[in-house]
Amino acid sequence: MSEDTLVDELLAGKHRALARVITKIENRSPGYRDLVSQLHEHTGNAEVIGITGSPGAGKSTLVDKMAATYRERGETVGVIAIDPSSPFTGGAVLGDRIRMGSNVGDMDVFFRSMSARGSLGGLSTATTDAVKALDAFGKDKIIVETVGAGQNEIEIVKTADTVSVLVPPGSGDDIQMLKAGILEIADIFVVNKADMDGADRTVMELQEMIGMRDASPMAGHHGADALADTDDGAVGRGPGDEEGWQPAIVETVAKTGEGIEEFLGTIDEHVGWLSESGELEAQARQRYEAEIKTLLREDTAALLQDELAARGGLEGYIDRVLRKDTDPYTVADELMAPLEDCVAGARDQG
Amino acid sequence: MSEDTLVDELLAGKHRALARVITKIENRSPGYRDLVSQLHEHTGNAEVIGITGSPGAGKSTLVDKMAATYRERGETVGVIAIDPSSPFTGGAVLGDRIRMGSNVGDMDVFFRSMSARGSLGGLSTATTDAVKALDAFGKDKIIVETVGAGQNEIEIVKTADTVSVLVPPGSGDDIQMLKAGILEIADIFVVNKADMDGADRTVMELQEMIGMRDASPMAGHHGADALADTDDGAVGRGPGDEEGWQPAIVETVAKTGEGIEEFLGTIDEHVGWLSESGELEAQARQRYEAEIKTLLREDTAALLQDELAARGGLEGYIDRVLRKDTDPYTVADELMAPLEDCVAGARDQG
Repeated sequence: MSEDTLVDELLAGKHRALARVITKIENRSPGYRDLVSQLHEHTGNAEVIGITGSPGAGKSTLVDKMAATYRERGETVGVIAIDPSSPFTGGAVLGDRIRMGSNVGDMDVFFRSMSARGSLGGLSTATTDAVKALDAFGKDKIIVETVGAGQNEIEIVKTADTVSVLVPPGSGDDIQMLKAGILEIADIFVVNKADMDGADRTVMELQEMIGMRDASPMAGHHGADALADTDDGAVGRGPGDEEGWQPAIVETVAKTGEGIEEFLGTIDEHVGWLSESGELEAQARQRYEAEIKTLLREDTAALLQDELAARGGLEGYIDRVLRKDTDPYTVADELMAPLEDCVAGARDQG
Repeated sequence: MSEDTLVDELLAGKHRALARVITKIENRSPGYRDLVSQLHEHTGNAEVIGITGSPGAGKSTLVDKMAATYRERGETVGVIAIDPSSPFTGGAVLGDRIRMGSNVGDMDVFFRSMSARGSLGGLSTATTDAVKALDAFGKDKIIVETVGAGQNEIEIVKTADTVSVLVPPGSGDDIQMLKAGILEIADIFVVNKADMDGADRTVMELQEMIGMRDASPMAGHHGADALADTDDGAVGRGPGDEEGWQPAIVETVAKTGEGIEEFLGTIDEHVGWLSESGELEAQARQRYEAEIKTLLREDTAALLQDELAARGGLEGYIDRVLRKDTDPYTVADELMAPLEDCVAGARDQG
């Protein structure tokens, strides 16, 4: 099938074409760039929800319940589950979900897992592109689910309009782990398994943490610098005030479905706030900027790779570095010099 | 002080000069590249030990005890503690250590913390460079300590000859978290707080995990594909056979110093194996290759940044992407074209 036909069929609502496009995106098959380029103008209608949290927090169950609830509302749903761990463990973890997805028989919940075949940077680009495919296809809600809270997972989950972080009730250690980066990106904290011991304490610790952030000069990127004195015991929920979004805390029991409606309601509130505050466009701008920069980084890396290959690879340079005849910085300078001269020359001419 | 004088003073053993060089490296002050270039030929004598593990695993205490023990042996020690979390929490976490370091009054344990000011990729380069400064200075042992087990921490800890992963005794969850990437890079697992409940179980789980890896076709980069049938209950310790290094498991109680000698002995064994097997040079080659590639990536990124600035920045492009007049891939293609033409042209001439 030609790429144009593939795009046409995807836009016409053929799930097979959607699946093939995402496979091309995942594998970076020849022509995938052109595909994504063509899809771009059809995007911008879906709501993208990111779900992250440590393994065992109950993400899969929660996402399944979310999808079912959206379907009941008559909305179509796409799920992309990203596993940034090594392929070794990745397959096994996602196996059950894949089987489940195909058994459901309800293709309006389109479930797709993607794993880190290439670089993790590449996975974040692939996620963005897969989201575009689902968006252009016409899915109303797109859920991006990712394991863990490392820097790369944060990059991935940033493709979402609303970022939800699952926190299992339990030791304060989990909260401590959260601090590193995840706090800044969470729009909603979901304390899942809220029927378990320790859930109340976890909610309290999250409240404290949110309060702490507000009091700090380094408030998160959503500008949540308002309500620094909100220590009146109220759960930080919904828009803090006109200036910022106060991260919300919701409690769910994904297994029974308890709290799911409230969670989805909070997502709706957040999306409402995004759109009224102008943050939706601001985020889109940031995302496109990040996207272009990532592509440029990947493209220059490929260019350098070719250039290195044309020069016979790095082996000779490494030999000299090992013999202390030269050093990595000097080698980099040598290799960059022609590129820099070239660009400078082109600019002078232009 | 000129850069040449700074290098001379560092090589002459002045700790002040060492500290200033590392500050320049950390801040990427003008001239830092030249400094590191000059230091390169004086490196290659230190043994670099990486320590990673989740917060609360007892890394600080263990590192302090290691340093003290090396000092008793008459060896000099440098410690670089990397905190890849946001600067917001970073300072506070390391505060105590910095104070402790300065109170000890024994400058032969040179303690230095570095945080992620710029990109995390940058932090990995800065760590490599700081290790070089300590190496050129003449430190016998350099300990690189980093929090967590994300992809970036893994990059950082790879600067070490011997990678030790601290595992707190406890729930199997910790082991599960470990699987994602850390298993492949660990030369030694340290079950710290071995006097706590659950330590034996953790050791057993680690043994199982190591056994599992050996049986899998995706064995780690140390080529530990030997001894797949070593299920005789023996702790995987020391060289597996001539072919590979079997990750060792040691138990410590850092607080009391219990097990520290055995841990350092295992590190010595690993270093012995590295050198006899030829892995030491193979690793050095890999490291230099990674170093050069990272520098090239950073340099081309900077070049692109300049080029973009010369073209008036990305704002105009982003506007057009938002209006769906164009899309990120097309923008990247447009921006890359002159660079690609340039390189192609230069190659034809050359």
